[in-house]
Amino acid sequence: MRYLGIDVGGTNLKGAVVTENGEILKEASCPTHADRGADAVADAISTLILDLTCGEEIVGVGVGCPGTVDDERGEVIYSCNLNWIHYPLREKLKERTGYTVKLGNDANVAALGEALVGAAKGAQSAVILTLGTGVGGGVVIDGKLLQGYTGAASELGHMVIVDGGRKCGCGRMGCFEAYASAEALSRMTREAMAQHPESQMHRLAADYGAVDGRVAFDAQAAGDAAGDAVVRQYIHYLAVGVANIVNLFFPEVIAISGGVAKQGERLLAPLRQEVSALEYGAAYTVKHPRIVGCTLGYQAGVIGAALLAK
Amino acid sequence: MRYLGIDVGGTNLKGAVVTENGEILKEASCPTHADRGADAVADAISTLILDLTCGEEIVGVGVGCPGTVDDERGEVIYSCNLNWIHYPLREKLKERTGYTVKLGNDANVAALGEALVGAAKGAQSAVILTLGTGVGGGVVIDGKLLQGYTGAASELGHMVIVDGGRKCGCGRMGCFEAYASAEALSRMTREAMAQHPESQMHRLAADYGAVDGRVAFDAQAAGDAAGDAVVRQYIHYLAVGVANIVNLFFPEVIAISGGVAKQGERLLAPLRQEVSALEYGAAYTVKHPRIVGCTLGYQAGVIGAALLAK
Repeated sequence: MRYLGIDVGGTNLKGAVVTENGEILKEASCPTHADRGADAVADAISTLILDLTCGEEIVGVGVGCPGTVDDERGEVIYSCNLNWIHYPLREKLKERTGYTVKLGNDANVAALGEALVGAAKGAQSAVILTLGTGVGGGVVIDGKLLQGYTGAASELGHMVIVDGGRKCGCGRMGCFEAYASAEALSRMTREAMAQHPESQMHRLAADYGAVDGRVAFDAQAAGDAAGDAVVRQYIHYLAVGVANIVNLFFPEVIAISGGVAKQGERLLAPLRQEVSALEYGAAYTVKHPRIVGCTLGYQAGVIGAALLAK
Repeated sequence: MRYLGIDVGGTNLKGAVVTENGEILKEASCPTHADRGADAVADAISTLILDLTCGEEIVGVGVGCPGTVDDERGEVIYSCNLNWIHYPLREKLKERTGYTVKLGNDANVAALGEALVGAAKGAQSAVILTLGTGVGGGVVIDGKLLQGYTGAASELGHMVIVDGGRKCGCGRMGCFEAYASAEALSRMTREAMAQHPESQMHRLAADYGAVDGRVAFDAQAAGDAAGDAVVRQYIHYLAVGVANIVNLFFPEVIAISGGVAKQGERLLAPLRQEVSALEYGAAYTVKHPRIVGCTLGYQAGVIGAALLAK
């Protein structure tokens, strides 16, 4: 059985023909050019679908889109990245391709991929947390995505962890995203650099050409005290949010992706230690969630979209 | 079809024979006397089961217990209230009654009752939040309790909303429970009374014989400024946690029970208003969670336990 997955990104549209085990057989991509408007993007998605399905026997097509996606209505309710409001994507794609696609939020769909055939393969339940520009992710329980009443569930980044704290892009104060995104890490790094002219972070940022998520971690590894403090502070906030996720969902696996996850065990080892102390009833619990890195990389989106159609 | 539900409380054991629609046909209860030890309590539960099932054709028996309960292992992993650690309750009850019981956490099980036949009857998904001594509850999606990998999921009260804030009974700092329980409301009331000797809260507390959850609400209703401030502060924290629950689960219904819920619309109307502004993507969402009061009262536990066995 073969499925087609489409990942609608702000920059590129990606598509792949995928087996039921998540193996990619064929891929293609093209620029999104969201500024052309929704209909033109839907046309480009349709062309990608027709190109990739040509000569293939495809059982189902799934599409992951940024924003709030309502599969029941067949609509992208609201996508800030694409500038779409109540866009009837399923109907448009059906008209042009003949396929009735399944729709999902892009981060949720990528989480489904990691849960079913990636980092959390075989697990009873998994939460995938993406530490990128924002904090996104998805929750998969018994092989099924948690979508909620509207498709807007699993907005993991928009859980307040510091009431009255840093302003988040969503308008609330103190969201997890405002403390645990790669962007938040860069901001903490910039703040610490301003206070510590002696820090090695200045040299590293100059080498990299930017203050990004690597600077503090690499400074810490080089024995820099200010870099160490930034990493500890960042991991503290990350642990608060991850421990909340544990106490709410208690998943078998928490898998982390996105730019910051590239730090691997430099991030994961101290995170595990801090989270385990914050789990509710930790002293008596027999089974603890495993905290791991994601494994599918950028392909999680197309694989998950394909498996959504399964 | 008839089911038996048992609600193991710190003070009383309650049992009821329940129809598949949640109607109670017969009830009984007896004191728990947890200090007698786990085996003696299991004996008392067994007697209650045998008494209530006598002469009845019972299809299944469900038991709700405080603490972390692992139905897969048939164990109460840890119950602070009962002082049980890794107690094999299913095996003990099977020996004495012949029934293979389903086990669940008491708050989760009560949530199942409210979700299936109470406040959220017919809803696709529901989160039940109990504002009592602590903050507990349960999450029900497509008629199924969210149990997590260990049965420890849905610890709604142990989600940090103020990192570094008030110490919670669980040991973490800033848990939702430390701000939104009836106990937290009483504490805020006491603090405001100490600062406002002129407040009507002093007279009300004297009338009630205690500083409880009613004092600030009744003072507010009587036009007392300090009482009004306490209620607003309390509802703010409650709204932060409820909005987090919306952004994580986006359930169709959020139903509130426990002592504070007795305030009805005095609590719910301002809560709805504050939460709706904090929902992620609220401006474009078509469907919003309904925030309502629970309807089954103290019977939610036995009804939910019975339906757990369904």
